[in-house]
Amino acid sequence: MYNARAYSAASATSPLASTTVARRDPTEHDVQIEILFCGICHSDLHQVRSEWSGIRTVYPCVPGHEIVGRVTGVGPAVTKFKPGDIAAVGCMVDSDGTCPECRAGLEQFCPNMVLTYNSPDKHLGGVTYGGYSDSVVVDERFVLRVPSNLNLAGAAPLLCAGITTYSPVRRWGVTKGRKVGVVGLGGLGHMGVKFAHALGAHVVVFTHSLNKKEDAFRFGADEVVVSRNADEMKKHTGSFDFILDTVSAEHDINAYIQLLRRDGNITLVGAPGKPLAVSAFGLLLGRRNLSGSLIGGIPETQEMLDFCGAHHIIADVEIIPIQKVNEAYERLLKSDVKYRFSIDMASLKSE
Amino acid sequence: MYNARAYSAASATSPLASTTVARRDPTEHDVQIEILFCGICHSDLHQVRSEWSGIRTVYPCVPGHEIVGRVTGVGPAVTKFKPGDIAAVGCMVDSDGTCPECRAGLEQFCPNMVLTYNSPDKHLGGVTYGGYSDSVVVDERFVLRVPSNLNLAGAAPLLCAGITTYSPVRRWGVTKGRKVGVVGLGGLGHMGVKFAHALGAHVVVFTHSLNKKEDAFRFGADEVVVSRNADEMKKHTGSFDFILDTVSAEHDINAYIQLLRRDGNITLVGAPGKPLAVSAFGLLLGRRNLSGSLIGGIPETQEMLDFCGAHHIIADVEIIPIQKVNEAYERLLKSDVKYRFSIDMASLKSE
Repeated sequence: MYNARAYSAASATSPLASTTVARRDPTEHDVQIEILFCGICHSDLHQVRSEWSGIRTVYPCVPGHEIVGRVTGVGPAVTKFKPGDIAAVGCMVDSDGTCPECRAGLEQFCPNMVLTYNSPDKHLGGVTYGGYSDSVVVDERFVLRVPSNLNLAGAAPLLCAGITTYSPVRRWGVTKGRKVGVVGLGGLGHMGVKFAHALGAHVVVFTHSLNKKEDAFRFGADEVVVSRNADEMKKHTGSFDFILDTVSAEHDINAYIQLLRRDGNITLVGAPGKPLAVSAFGLLLGRRNLSGSLIGGIPETQEMLDFCGAHHIIADVEIIPIQKVNEAYERLLKSDVKYRFSIDMASLKSE
Repeated sequence: MYNARAYSAASATSPLASTTVARRDPTEHDVQIEILFCGICHSDLHQVRSEWSGIRTVYPCVPGHEIVGRVTGVGPAVTKFKPGDIAAVGCMVDSDGTCPECRAGLEQFCPNMVLTYNSPDKHLGGVTYGGYSDSVVVDERFVLRVPSNLNLAGAAPLLCAGITTYSPVRRWGVTKGRKVGVVGLGGLGHMGVKFAHALGAHVVVFTHSLNKKEDAFRFGADEVVVSRNADEMKKHTGSFDFILDTVSAEHDINAYIQLLRRDGNITLVGAPGKPLAVSAFGLLLGRRNLSGSLIGGIPETQEMLDFCGAHHIIADVEIIPIQKVNEAYERLLKSDVKYRFSIDMASLKSE
């Protein structure tokens, strides 16, 4: 056991502050990683502030599940990694490995899955601590390889924002010849646009206002539609094969369901706090589908990272020192980030 | 042109009453049918009483789209039918035949589809008149063959209640080894149970009360769950491959979404007037799907009828004379029918 530097929250109303947390020494199958960058996901903020009903936050809470770093040690049974390798960890650090979900490579649905932070830690007791830290120890099954051509600050958000959008985009057959919508151009949405574009689809971005229009085109959008403009929306009625809805604020999903063609699918990856009001007629007429998607399994996460390597895809990030994390949270609440914060963990050394 | 006897409503508040309506003489591709039985669908009542926002009812209105009868005449180009054949007509009587939906055999999504009643009639002007009548003339493309072993009174409801439930049950892969739920045991639900059972699935019926329990087992249910009983519902969490939701009254769909396993689908065939409150978390966790389905195309309707012939499936009907149609509507509002009314059109001769 050793102490790692970290930033933690002491309560739902405390700012994040410098601390140390215990990490286990690598066991047989473990990989020890010096964290270089960690993305800030909106989930971090929700969890730290205990805003999710039904999921109790245990304090101190060290958030962070978009982790990239350098391997500093491996257990004797580790085969995939050696010290010096660049490695990544996402939202999960363990699962039972034996249930049907695990066997299907869909560890995110394993009933015994362990989240990267705020999940019971079977090694040290207490809960798991996330990536706002200089070091982490993770079972190699949950450690990913990062293609060498990717910028590491921009690669960190791939571990959540990336896989969360990549998985449904692949699942619903986004490819050349398909018309694909992306609702919302934030941390998730901008990744969705990049993936759908890289896969050859015709990509339409729906946004509240036009101030992100140029960025949308830069990410690969073919069209940008202002969602408030009913006439502009109407032109697209019944024309989309797939829509990725990344908005977690309340919004009228029926306006997007109408835009799907027959058998089209709209998948939610954001989770609005209040139930969505869904008109049954919108689903009946056109035999349309509304789905949800939750990150992705480990095999698909590796596939996504390899895809990003092949297509030179990273997130657009604003790199911040850990000392600015509380300020970053406030800006996140105002959607004032293009398009993900990535914490440079070197800044933690000066604490 | 000739006069057919019929029952029509003169306004949204008028009872249905005896009348005559003009029918065209069979043109080249038309089949003339003496109607023997016509099922009563809840849609008939909604349309007659002008209860659907966005769909204006034109009066006089002759409802009825669950039609079986005997061919009395055919146009010179008709190849599929000859006088004396037993034939059926469902919710549609025409479509453009050239659009992608028609070419896919999904005429129900054709932008130029003509409903069996209350749709513009391109032959005679005005609107189409439905099956509460002693005769109808329909393009042979929209006339179905009825297997000779089926009781005709019980076969009539197959044309709407049957295909509406058969189509999603087939589309979502209901078969042996799958666990399938049917929510609501009315005209649609009881057909859903029969189809899912005939396809070999393990069928669970969800109902408000237990007074239909014996019927549910008779239709092929393996289990009956009282949906008010939270404990009983909870036992089925995460276990269903597919759920057919036939309830058009307001209800908590999240309680059923929770029962789906990973990648499970719940399909709506009833259309609640108010939007459904759908929790995004229920869809995200388990990557579940909520869909709609709308009747079925002509090829699938014929497939369904042939399936019913092979499996000896008909609707459970209460046969009434047309003179009792207004009373039947009142009973329909109280769900006081087991499980579909079928009008014996011979009764119209005595008007």
